[in-house]
Amino acid sequence: MKILNESEAVALSAPFVYTLISSLDREGRPNVMGASWATQTSFQPFLWLISIDRRRYSHAGIDMHKEFVLHFPSEEQAEAAWVCGTRSGRDEDKIKSSGFRLLPSRSVKVPTIDGVTAAFECRVVNQIETGDHTVFVGEVVGISGSPEKARHLFVSSDRKLFAVAGTGKQ
Amino acid sequence: MKILNESEAVALSAPFVYTLISSLDREGRPNVMGASWATQTSFQPFLWLISIDRRRYSHAGIDMHKEFVLHFPSEEQAEAAWVCGTRSGRDEDKIKSSGFRLLPSRSVKVPTIDGVTAAFECRVVNQIETGDHTVFVGEVVGISGSPEKARHLFVSSDRKLFAVAGTGKQ
Repeated sequence: MKILNESEAVALSAPFVYTLISSLDREGRPNVMGASWATQTSFQPFLWLISIDRRRYSHAGIDMHKEFVLHFPSEEQAEAAWVCGTRSGRDEDKIKSSGFRLLPSRSVKVPTIDGVTAAFECRVVNQIETGDHTVFVGEVVGISGSPEKARHLFVSSDRKLFAVAGTGKQ
Repeated sequence: MKILNESEAVALSAPFVYTLISSLDREGRPNVMGASWATQTSFQPFLWLISIDRRRYSHAGIDMHKEFVLHFPSEEQAEAAWVCGTRSGRDEDKIKSSGFRLLPSRSVKVPTIDGVTAAFECRVVNQIETGDHTVFVGEVVGISGSPEKARHLFVSSDRKLFAVAGTGKQ
């Protein structure tokens, strides 16, 4: 066992699941960002959490509206997912650039991205500051998905997207 | 897009990274548990969070000592890692059952598991209750690892461990 620095150790702990988070900005316009720092955090109630950099454009909107949708984009969405993960909603309408089609969600005002493997509609029930990020804890109030598209995206240590199925098939 | 129930949607969002968390129990004895609900949550300071079921044996020890080590076990450790993930430290000494070798950590009293891909020594700087779990936010105060063992473990929707490298090679 060697002593490692932060960037070496984070690279070794890759790959990370690659999610897309939709939200409404302060003017009520939908935006989509890429995020890897997300995990389930309770069975009952059914909660997920996301960790969002306070400088990100989506942060203010989630903080204001207390809603987001957490998506696991499917393999075929890699290109559009990468557009949303590498550009800012401050500068452009990423929905348009990515070509994603948005659907009305069942239980939140924030729309859901069509064609993803799974989408969790969340209402923020708690949040805490963690260093330069905010953890938003979301209660799941609606779920949709595409069981036929089980292969969804992960990001490697060299920032490439690739797909793995829930059963472990790559 | 179909409406999904919770278990269908969680299965679709698999695989999940499979980590091992070491801690000291209330009597100061080391214990190791398996956990998938973990993510980095800040760059500066360097923070990770783990979400631990309040009924788990490790919970009381982390809550008392405010320290844990988060490990990414390597491919060759799958069998031992599964022992730690499926049994309870209440009933047995899992370190002995698994055959893991523990090393002194650099900056915390909780020991580090030898031979893992990466290990993050953490001091709890914040915690919140999230439903039936507690989120412990840990500041990383020491890091070690085995860069030659980049392939580390994930768990599939049918509860099987398999390895993926940080570069996406499976």
